[in-house]
Amino acid sequence: MVVDRLKQVASHVSGQTGPPHPLDPLSEAEIAQAVAIVRKEHSGLFFNAVTLWEPRKAQMLAWLADPKTAPRPVRTADIVALGLGSKVYDGTVDLEAEKIVSWKLTENVQPLITMEDLQVVEAIVRKDPRVIEQCGIIGIPPEDMHKVYCDPWTIGYDERFGNKIRLQQAFVYYRPNPDDCQYTYPLDFLPIFNTETHEIIHIDIPPVRRPLNKAPPINYHAEAIEKEGGFRDDLKPINITQPEGVSFKVDGRIIDWQKWKVHIGFNYREGLVLSNITFNDKGTERPVFWRLSLAEMVVPYGNPEHPHPRKHAFDLGEYGAGYMTNSLTLGCDCKGAIHYMDAAFVNRAGEATSIKNAICIHEEDAGILFKHTDFRDESCTVTRARKLVISQIFTAANYEYCVYWIFHQDGTIQLEVKLTGILNTYPMNPGEDLHGWGTEVYPGVNAHNHQHLFCMRVDPNVDGPNNTVFEVDATRGPGEVGSQENYHGNAFYAKKTKLATAGESKREYDGSTSRTWEMVNPNKINPYSHKPVSYKLVSREVPGLLPKEGGLVWRRAGFARHAIHVTKYSDDQIHPAGRHVPQTSGTPSHGLPAWIAANPAENIDNTDIVLWHTFGLTHFPAPEDFPIMPAEPMTLLLRPRNFFTSNPCMDIRPSHSSTPTAVAKGQAVAVGDPASRLVGGGECCAK
Amino acid sequence: MVVDRLKQVASHVSGQTGPPHPLDPLSEAEIAQAVAIVRKEHSGLFFNAVTLWEPRKAQMLAWLADPKTAPRPVRTADIVALGLGSKVYDGTVDLEAEKIVSWKLTENVQPLITMEDLQVVEAIVRKDPRVIEQCGIIGIPPEDMHKVYCDPWTIGYDERFGNKIRLQQAFVYYRPNPDDCQYTYPLDFLPIFNTETHEIIHIDIPPVRRPLNKAPPINYHAEAIEKEGGFRDDLKPINITQPEGVSFKVDGRIIDWQKWKVHIGFNYREGLVLSNITFNDKGTERPVFWRLSLAEMVVPYGNPEHPHPRKHAFDLGEYGAGYMTNSLTLGCDCKGAIHYMDAAFVNRAGEATSIKNAICIHEEDAGILFKHTDFRDESCTVTRARKLVISQIFTAANYEYCVYWIFHQDGTIQLEVKLTGILNTYPMNPGEDLHGWGTEVYPGVNAHNHQHLFCMRVDPNVDGPNNTVFEVDATRGPGEVGSQENYHGNAFYAKKTKLATAGESKREYDGSTSRTWEMVNPNKINPYSHKPVSYKLVSREVPGLLPKEGGLVWRRAGFARHAIHVTKYSDDQIHPAGRHVPQTSGTPSHGLPAWIAANPAENIDNTDIVLWHTFGLTHFPAPEDFPIMPAEPMTLLLRPRNFFTSNPCMDIRPSHSSTPTAVAKGQAVAVGDPASRLVGGGECCAK
Ligand SMILES: [Co+2]
Ligand SMILES: [Co+2]
Repeated sequence: MVVDRLKQVASHVSGQTGPPHPLDPLSEAEIAQAVAIVRKEHSGLFFNAVTLWEPRKAQMLAWLADPKTAPRPVRTADIVALGLGSKVYDGTVDLEAEKIVSWKLTENVQPLITMEDLQVVEAIVRKDPRVIEQCGIIGIPPEDMHKVYCDPWTIGYDERFGNKIRLQQAFVYYRPNPDDCQYTYPLDFLPIFNTETHEIIHIDIPPVRRPLNKAPPINYHAEAIEKEGGFRDDLKPINITQPEGVSFKVDGRIIDWQKWKVHIGFNYREGLVLSNITFNDKGTERPVFWRLSLAEMVVPYGNPEHPHPRKHAFDLGEYGAGYMTNSLTLGCDCKGAIHYMDAAFVNRAGEATSIKNAICIHEEDAGILFKHTDFRDESCTVTRARKLVISQIFTAANYEYCVYWIFHQDGTIQLEVKLTGILNTYPMNPGEDLHGWGTEVYPGVNAHNHQHLFCMRVDPNVDGPNNTVFEVDATRGPGEVGSQENYHGNAFYAKKTKLATAGESKREYDGSTSRTWEMVNPNKINPYSHKPVSYKLVSREVPGLLPKEGGLVWRRAGFARHAIHVTKYSDDQIHPAGRHVPQTSGTPSHGLPAWIAANPAENIDNTDIVLWHTFGLTHFPAPEDFPIMPAEPMTLLLRPRNFFTSNPCMDIRPSHSSTPTAVAKGQAVAVGDPASRLVGGGECCAK
Repeated sequence: MVVDRLKQVASHVSGQTGPPHPLDPLSEAEIAQAVAIVRKEHSGLFFNAVTLWEPRKAQMLAWLADPKTAPRPVRTADIVALGLGSKVYDGTVDLEAEKIVSWKLTENVQPLITMEDLQVVEAIVRKDPRVIEQCGIIGIPPEDMHKVYCDPWTIGYDERFGNKIRLQQAFVYYRPNPDDCQYTYPLDFLPIFNTETHEIIHIDIPPVRRPLNKAPPINYHAEAIEKEGGFRDDLKPINITQPEGVSFKVDGRIIDWQKWKVHIGFNYREGLVLSNITFNDKGTERPVFWRLSLAEMVVPYGNPEHPHPRKHAFDLGEYGAGYMTNSLTLGCDCKGAIHYMDAAFVNRAGEATSIKNAICIHEEDAGILFKHTDFRDESCTVTRARKLVISQIFTAANYEYCVYWIFHQDGTIQLEVKLTGILNTYPMNPGEDLHGWGTEVYPGVNAHNHQHLFCMRVDPNVDGPNNTVFEVDATRGPGEVGSQENYHGNAFYAKKTKLATAGESKREYDGSTSRTWEMVNPNKINPYSHKPVSYKLVSREVPGLLPKEGGLVWRRAGFARHAIHVTKYSDDQIHPAGRHVPQTSGTPSHGLPAWIAANPAENIDNTDIVLWHTFGLTHFPAPEDFPIMPAEPMTLLLRPRNFFTSNPCMDIRPSHSSTPTAVAKGQAVAVGDPASRLVGGGECCAK
């Protein structure tokens, strides 16, 4: 059997024995096999995506519950292919039966733009006579066309061109020298590129022209800094080592760390996917989340002047957080003791390729986990925290997004996103009034206002799949000051509002009530608090979508209209802006708005649900962000509330612990940290 | 001269040569000297506080500008002393002229409760016949009174007792065994204690009685965990070392690190005080903040039932973040290469004492500082971040507050506060309805809803003292969707509203506009962006004060009524709830409300101003928080915006840097991190 042979290949590559876990991404061998199966029946195809068709949840849960008897989910590939004439095919392939399960021509859609699609544009732009003409108008002579660069983006949606032709728009730049930062020299016109025919079909030209920026280059790479005066020399090394090894175990793609178990998946679209997350509570593996991922994002820009209103990007749905992911390097991106995982993809030609070190897994010290000192006698227990970080970094043209899924020993899961990279820029004339839509971050460089809005898909599994979401608001109690029931006016409580139907689940953030959302299991009551077990979403960076209702971004990025949506689980609802995002008009809106509109009365109480949360930030650029932006962090927490019966991490050995009795006797239990040192000499308390 | 001799002593202790910096806390010798000077003229005094009377700002700035010619600010002590009959004296003493400068009897106030005041209560409570009687009623026999413990708090304010008598209220607990956590066994009555006469003057008894909890102990100290099944054994050490030393320099109490300079002060009340913070911008030491501190906090509890409405604590104003600060231990509280500073205080008897290792100063790796990869050729620069952490931990009876002032290389200052320790608890009867005011966190243990609200005092000095605060709201642009000016509805901008007078500076947080506040210097314009230089307060944990307008906490904690207040600088306005906080009725409100009400039209535009920011969180307890709470973090940022002309940290040596030209030639500049390792073997890229 071919499958057996492929399994052997896969196990050789991954060091894994036995068949892949049903949630493992497709291996290179499996991708190649899927393509071969398709090719047997269909010719003339290019491949846009070949990825794991995730097992249906019901089947997967049945298998996990009884892996010996229940049928093992079949390895299946989910395929997007392109035929001539911008034809799009969606299909699935059974890799075990070696057959196509489904195959269809999908009309009026454009699948995402791959790195290969992006790479092809620049050379063609440089040669296009109309581009050369435009360059001439703003001061670039024809012999300098090799100094013109472009960052292609999907076109988003432009009503002039619709969605029949697969388009990119080319943000064009100039580099005086190949090593100069091109974002200092944005050009003022925008070629539109036909991805299939490799032609420039149109150029958007602004009403007011802006000649090439004359400001000197500003660069951040090492050679430039050496030339500018060199590096500071007062930063001493800091070493982080784990001489006895790491505290996590890796079994295939399942990580076992500090009572957590999590399967680490990865796909071209969402990048990291964490599945079947459980926490071992005193010997019982309690399910917490079935699946967590960043499922979509949108970056709307705030300049209403032509040709900018169209400028917005769905970095996941239009390009793919997997496809754009960085190959990470030890000691640079990742410090300490690092475990990497690679990521396999298909290319346009149907070959399997891999990005090495796509995922970084490591532990960090996380400061104090808990501490208390008894003021009477100074008896004290202090325990330090550790965290496990599962991360990737992806580059979306000018920007980088660093995504950290962080597991804490107290049962908290944290998502941290850091923004770095370079601002998208546009030229400006000297003294030009930017009307508040952007900032001159460097002479002649206008960086437009924009938002980074991420949609986190949370499939809760809080002690089982049947969960309910409550909105929780810190609320003043009834009774005026001076009344008997509330004499000093100090009463307050957590007001909990059940979200019972999908239609009523579209909720906003409210900072004034410190609003959170609890995912509870109403069938499982905490024996102490008598409240249902829950995980609480604590998210404070929730700016809301600024583009107006009815406008282009509002229509296309329906998921971003509200901080929260809740839907009944469906195997097919992964992508909140739809399966194929480029060149959607937003009329109708795909994804979340459509799913909910189809049945707004759908019950989401005590059933298998998915919570979609849009968070992010609004970015008003400043010169500090240029020419490369110091990382700007944003974070959210998923915290256990009434889930455990007590602090679940008291069995971590404290650094220091003394009881009143021990203090009286002059004894204390201290482990300390033999590696710590006083500046100027001196070792740890425990020595 | 005595002063010279004292300077010698001080320099011997601190390793410092020359006189102390004018902002240095008083040394032990100076405290002793101050007490001696007072004692020469006044007898029969006990001491509540002897601390640095900070130099008047104008004088201090003049001296800093011209230290050779301008008069050096005189070392002066600020004194609070207690005479018999609860008499309170406020005075200042010139330590150089060795004389009392001011001295007055202050009527109708109570200065804070010191650790000595707190320590005295328990023994008296145990012997009081009425307490013994109450214990008997709830099931504690007289022979077990040694098992009764109490956490004394100030009384806050109780109209039955006013403020003539110095009072404490005793939260009473029981310990089956001296090493058991008492918060599992709260008692239901509250003795009121006269701090001067050492008598119980009253006992508050609830209408419904609650016998002693019968639940088994739950403990977190090492002995208990060993007994309960022991510690997890799968956590491997993680070592953080700086073999070549730290990257900061210490000159007295001035720290010089990565272009930052900051003077580290400390007092009994605010704890850490950071002064004269500057950032070296390409050779120019630019002032950023004159002074930063946590100036006050309040913890209101949300149960309106007698005797709880009175329950709230001003941990700084009523006890002192300095007095309650922990002596930190290397390798336990602090990991890596650590520099400590001690803190000196007066005791009741007028003797100087010190808390060793009160302040921890250390560096940490901080992940990626910035990164960008060119998707064309994979040329890439990645630079890692470092941060400097200046921290203290203080224990307020049951709670601990870990305070981290964090300096980043990009010019950002971060304040992080972690809450840990133990919940304040109250007994409950089996099955008792808690009415939403608390949670049963363990059988028989009711933890009440509460807030932790901190007031950060920010004295900006953004390129000089004359600053203005603008409120900044992310705002949709004008023009409906479809209009010519805003066709796609995508326009948005940063709406900036000047706070021109103290009266109009009382502002709330608005999460829906991602509201921030910019402290700008309107006299200094960024040459690129043409916007005034500024530092922006980014704070997202701003729950607002839940106790109602007109109620006790609202009246007493005036600073907490609004997220922001701005006042014109005054040397005397340090404490936003007033100089003496215990037993204030809030009628009138002291501190901020009084200062602003005195002159609401006071100009705060382009003058020396102070911004007061109240942030924090609302805590609805859960069993996870018991018996000891995993640290709950909250954070805020002070970020440079339009302050620099570019990213100010590009001269930090990257871990990896390659230009397109270098990539083409197969070259790259990599420093990497020789200590990093792959799990299972393998070293850094740079090797
Ligand atoms: Co941005
Ligand atoms: Co709390």
